[in-house]
Amino acid sequence: MILHGYFRSSAAWRVRLALGLKGLAYEDAFHHLRRGEQRAAAYLALNPQALLPALEVGGGEILTQSMAILEYLEETQPSPALLPRSPLMRGKVRAFAQAIVSDIHPVQNLRVLARLRELGLDEDAVSAWAAHFIGTGLDACERLVADRPEPFAFGDAPGMADICLIPQLYNARRFGLEPRWPRLAAIERHCEGLPVFIAAHPLQQADAE
Amino acid sequence: MILHGYFRSSAAWRVRLALGLKGLAYEDAFHHLRRGEQRAAAYLALNPQALLPALEVGGGEILTQSMAILEYLEETQPSPALLPRSPLMRGKVRAFAQAIVSDIHPVQNLRVLARLRELGLDEDAVSAWAAHFIGTGLDACERLVADRPEPFAFGDAPGMADICLIPQLYNARRFGLEPRWPRLAAIERHCEGLPVFIAAHPLQQADAE
Repeated sequence: MILHGYFRSSAAWRVRLALGLKGLAYEDAFHHLRRGEQRAAAYLALNPQALLPALEVGGGEILTQSMAILEYLEETQPSPALLPRSPLMRGKVRAFAQAIVSDIHPVQNLRVLARLRELGLDEDAVSAWAAHFIGTGLDACERLVADRPEPFAFGDAPGMADICLIPQLYNARRFGLEPRWPRLAAIERHCEGLPVFIAAHPLQQADAE
Repeated sequence: MILHGYFRSSAAWRVRLALGLKGLAYEDAFHHLRRGEQRAAAYLALNPQALLPALEVGGGEILTQSMAILEYLEETQPSPALLPRSPLMRGKVRAFAQAIVSDIHPVQNLRVLARLRELGLDEDAVSAWAAHFIGTGLDACERLVADRPEPFAFGDAPGMADICLIPQLYNARRFGLEPRWPRLAAIERHCEGLPVFIAAHPLQQADAE
């Protein structure tokens, strides 16, 4: 498999974590988001959305969208599982993941912040925008798992929820947010010591700057 | 089951479509988004994200996030299926859905446009923002399915991709976008004559204004 990514892309980071947790080998293909390499013709032919990540899964087939890729990996390589067994609990884990993937990350990603700058917002206003949506979004995530006793978001092993949470906490710090989520911080401490999470960190990637 | 929704919420509309396609009965609980009723204490106790939809599935359990709800319904009521059988094709359908759910809709929804107004943007600029992200997003969606021969996005029956597409095309028109997607328009024509799609339309809901 070939993972098309960028060291700092949260969505590519999620896929690195899923591949790592499942012990799947892959090659990297890097595309520099800030230089616009995701809009090069060769990459557009792979992914008309011009977004990262994309995963070449063999046979000339390619999958895009981090959540679709995570579900594909879960279906084709079920062990270790990223989702619990019961449909209800799977629904709760997916809802936590989507609260980040749909409601926080897209509103603070590179293309949206670039648009705000084009509209004349200065850097303080752009950072305040990102901090507002990340902060209120993670406030809700904290409440979703506050009363759960497990070390990870939904269990004794890291899964889909943790995969989505860790990159978003990193982004929170990048935009100057003071951590205010004790349960999310505890989950992060459990994750950050694991070899898979260490290896998937942006600064460990070959294209890191 | 009880569906907490609002007639014009795209995400609630997706769940109405999924429930309808699977022939599942439910009761409505309406929360008026523009009046802020999703932030009332009683609803926050159900969904700390203060977003719609939420689905009470029995036994005091509640699921949030439209995509998590769709996957739950698919797992608990598999027929008729909203996803194809092969993991690869399931990945492509989910990627199309997420291209709308993660990359278009969150950037043009009520809370983001309200924030733009707070920053001083006038209504023309707010509409231009929404039209930009909906337009470029649907341009990519058109390319994702342009060469497929089926009447619906990915097959001979409507599924998860169509469920996400139809509300987004409605929003495109609301923001003044001229339709420029022949394949998406053909899919919409196939959907809009079906009783389930007619019944799920915002203007058919009891809280429509």
